[in-house]
Amino acid sequence: MATAPSVSYSMTVRLEVPASGSAVGRLTTAVESHGGSVIGLDVTASGHEMLRIDVTIGATSTDHAQEIVEQLRQIEGVTLGKVSDRTFLMHLGGKIEMSSKHPIRNRDDLSMIYTPGVARVCTAIAENPEDARRLTSKRNSIAVVTDGSAVLGLGNIGPMAALPVMEGKAALFKRFAGIDAWPLCLDTQDTDTIVEVVKAIAPGFAGINLEDISAPRCFEIEARLREALDIPVFHDDQHGTAIVVLAALTNALRVVEKRIGDVRVVMSGAGAAGTAILKLLLAAGVKHAVVADIHGVVHAGREDLVDVDPDSPLCWVANNTNPEGVTGTLREAVRDADVFIGVSAPNVLTGEDVAAMADGAIVFALANPDPEVDPAVARRTAAVVATGRSDFPNQINNVLVFPGVFRGLLDAQSHRVDTDMLLAAAGALADVVAEDELNANYIIPSVFNDRVAGAVAGAVSHAARTVGAAGSTVTGATKG
Amino acid sequence: MATAPSVSYSMTVRLEVPASGSAVGRLTTAVESHGGSVIGLDVTASGHEMLRIDVTIGATSTDHAQEIVEQLRQIEGVTLGKVSDRTFLMHLGGKIEMSSKHPIRNRDDLSMIYTPGVARVCTAIAENPEDARRLTSKRNSIAVVTDGSAVLGLGNIGPMAALPVMEGKAALFKRFAGIDAWPLCLDTQDTDTIVEVVKAIAPGFAGINLEDISAPRCFEIEARLREALDIPVFHDDQHGTAIVVLAALTNALRVVEKRIGDVRVVMSGAGAAGTAILKLLLAAGVKHAVVADIHGVVHAGREDLVDVDPDSPLCWVANNTNPEGVTGTLREAVRDADVFIGVSAPNVLTGEDVAAMADGAIVFALANPDPEVDPAVARRTAAVVATGRSDFPNQINNVLVFPGVFRGLLDAQSHRVDTDMLLAAAGALADVVAEDELNANYIIPSVFNDRVAGAVAGAVSHAARTVGAAGSTVTGATKG
Repeated sequence: MATAPSVSYSMTVRLEVPASGSAVGRLTTAVESHGGSVIGLDVTASGHEMLRIDVTIGATSTDHAQEIVEQLRQIEGVTLGKVSDRTFLMHLGGKIEMSSKHPIRNRDDLSMIYTPGVARVCTAIAENPEDARRLTSKRNSIAVVTDGSAVLGLGNIGPMAALPVMEGKAALFKRFAGIDAWPLCLDTQDTDTIVEVVKAIAPGFAGINLEDISAPRCFEIEARLREALDIPVFHDDQHGTAIVVLAALTNALRVVEKRIGDVRVVMSGAGAAGTAILKLLLAAGVKHAVVADIHGVVHAGREDLVDVDPDSPLCWVANNTNPEGVTGTLREAVRDADVFIGVSAPNVLTGEDVAAMADGAIVFALANPDPEVDPAVARRTAAVVATGRSDFPNQINNVLVFPGVFRGLLDAQSHRVDTDMLLAAAGALADVVAEDELNANYIIPSVFNDRVAGAVAGAVSHAARTVGAAGSTVTGATKG
Repeated sequence: MATAPSVSYSMTVRLEVPASGSAVGRLTTAVESHGGSVIGLDVTASGHEMLRIDVTIGATSTDHAQEIVEQLRQIEGVTLGKVSDRTFLMHLGGKIEMSSKHPIRNRDDLSMIYTPGVARVCTAIAENPEDARRLTSKRNSIAVVTDGSAVLGLGNIGPMAALPVMEGKAALFKRFAGIDAWPLCLDTQDTDTIVEVVKAIAPGFAGINLEDISAPRCFEIEARLREALDIPVFHDDQHGTAIVVLAALTNALRVVEKRIGDVRVVMSGAGAAGTAILKLLLAAGVKHAVVADIHGVVHAGREDLVDVDPDSPLCWVANNTNPEGVTGTLREAVRDADVFIGVSAPNVLTGEDVAAMADGAIVFALANPDPEVDPAVARRTAAVVATGRSDFPNQINNVLVFPGVFRGLLDAQSHRVDTDMLLAAAGALADVVAEDELNANYIIPSVFNDRVAGAVAGAVSHAARTVGAAGSTVTGATKG
């Protein structure tokens, strides 16, 4: 799995170089001969004797970038100036801001936006709480809530270190669905406190996106908030992932011409994403599912499950999968399977394991950045391969889903989110890939496909209106 | 106290009018003869027989606006169309939004703003929490927190009905100080819960602006949050008002050539604003202060104070004012006083009461919209009069203060706010009025004076850096 140089590890290096001679030419050679790429080369000052050049370099890691900079320093006649990390530059001062929709130029503007005029608007809402969705930012606002306990692959790094991810998420909500999301990074990892805090801040928002909260707390937090609030609560790590996986599986099954009720699905990973994927697949019609975790295949008789709380997520998995009572290791279970879905750890399968799957095998190896099996190796025998990485075909990326899902929920003024809406989102996302576009390397559209968010939003909004979840007469933030 | 027609009670009325004849002329006459004003008259469609005209009308109240519309309907040949309330139009869909600072055009942008690049930024903050102020929106963000218990003069209207005020406040923070403020309207009025919620949401913010929380809970909430958090907590209804009052009093005393340590100050109102004003005046050097509430002058021997908790705010007032032990009514106390400051209720004083004050009397009648004494009447005998209203000279308006105070606190990366900073803010605001501009009708600058926010911010930031409140090595949201 060679990694290509990436802009996310790119640096801009300021250099002074003799105007005559071969130094300029040697810059590019030095970068490329050490595995980097030259993204840009800008002469920012030019004199008779010296040039000042800003070279932007793509590398594969921070260490690799440092190594390339060291090579540049050693070219004769070159003076090294400031080295700027482009990713850090984009984060300086934060990535999001609050904007006012109206200019405040004079006393008249002030008296309508603020006192005394605003008092009439407040009174209208106090008399008719429904009006909050019409006369305030509530209608289009969601809170992106985290406790920083399971951030990306970084683990429990806490709320402040999680903020750059939440800001990025907010930026994506705006970019892809015009939603005003604000991050709330909580200085607590206590389940009761998180539930209480989110209930308290709910009145100003039309939806709650939970993010990067570790399992199993995330299940209880989501369930209790859904019960308590009359706005939709959506844990993206669970349901966003589940929707993209179901959409990709739907199209992969079209490629191999198998039906969802017939295939044997083996999953690796029973965390937040794994459990949510499993539930959505079962709701979509999967009948033969087997889940393995770090202790092997999950089954009701497994030693570590005998004394466990029967309401625990893992017991739920044991009781709702594996009807044949398969035991043993993941590698044993995957033999003759039609579908493998990994949301677990790097390199749990080999090429031989994939080769031992049924004909027309489908492999989704979603561990990031290092998948459960090398996708290049898996592709030798599997019919369809997908990963979470952007440098392989068929990237399973939540960005395809969360903006459209919330757009649909907000458009329908929905008070909740349910499985029918998730299924509708997955179906709409799958259908963005037209019959004549569909093939083993294109089962899922690009995140920049501008039909995606609208298609997902339309399907979710329709489902929300159909089941009557939207438009109830109660719009207080907390159920009465 | 006649009220002039105001844009905050303005409507736009769509009319169809015969193109020939006198109907158009009669529109203006009808509006003005009923006490309204014509703000604008736009012909939006014109034909041989009919004109379509949008008339924008200023009125003094909602009822008054309806009355004028009724007059227009009765003009012969006029057909009344849609009537739009301009203040409500400005609130449709909310007044604020979230914006991304960077475009997300392609995969490269995505990989720097979000995954995988963002992971490096998170790691940097996890290793060095100080970096959160450099690499996230924390540096420039504050939360505007309310429980909706004391909104404007409307009282306890709840969190959703308070949201238009909080959005307006956020818009003003941006307009006057470039600060990113986000409203959090809390679905609880329990002191402990509010404290817990604000502590939990603190990591993403560099300051907390408490707003429209009723007394006496606001005192305890602020005190406990200041103790718990390492970011400044500022209750604008208390301290914002106190700062403007002190600035205005400083300049009024210059006008009448009296010294702050010599004057006798009588206050009406011992709520959140009254108590904060009193404390700041004492810190600024006032030596003779008497406070009256609805039961008369506050003194240590007053019947209703004998059995009260000695730590209560009113006992604090009794123990720190009224050294001469004055008793009786407000009207009695105000006789021979140099300064009257009202933050209480309409019409508690008459013109005779003001006439009985000392020579060079200063009257701040701040109850809104109806002051403690008619300012036109007060001006007959008082040397300087100020109100909270925008249609009289010398408006005491918090907008002069809160943007600059928070700008200064954020610029200094201050971990707290203290009395020295409030005094510095008041001094800087007073000094915006130059010696040669100062007179009885100009003791305080306009909210649109573009030197105000910078002057206040500079003074606060300087004070914060001087006392060493800023720049400690601890930047976690909660004290360690």
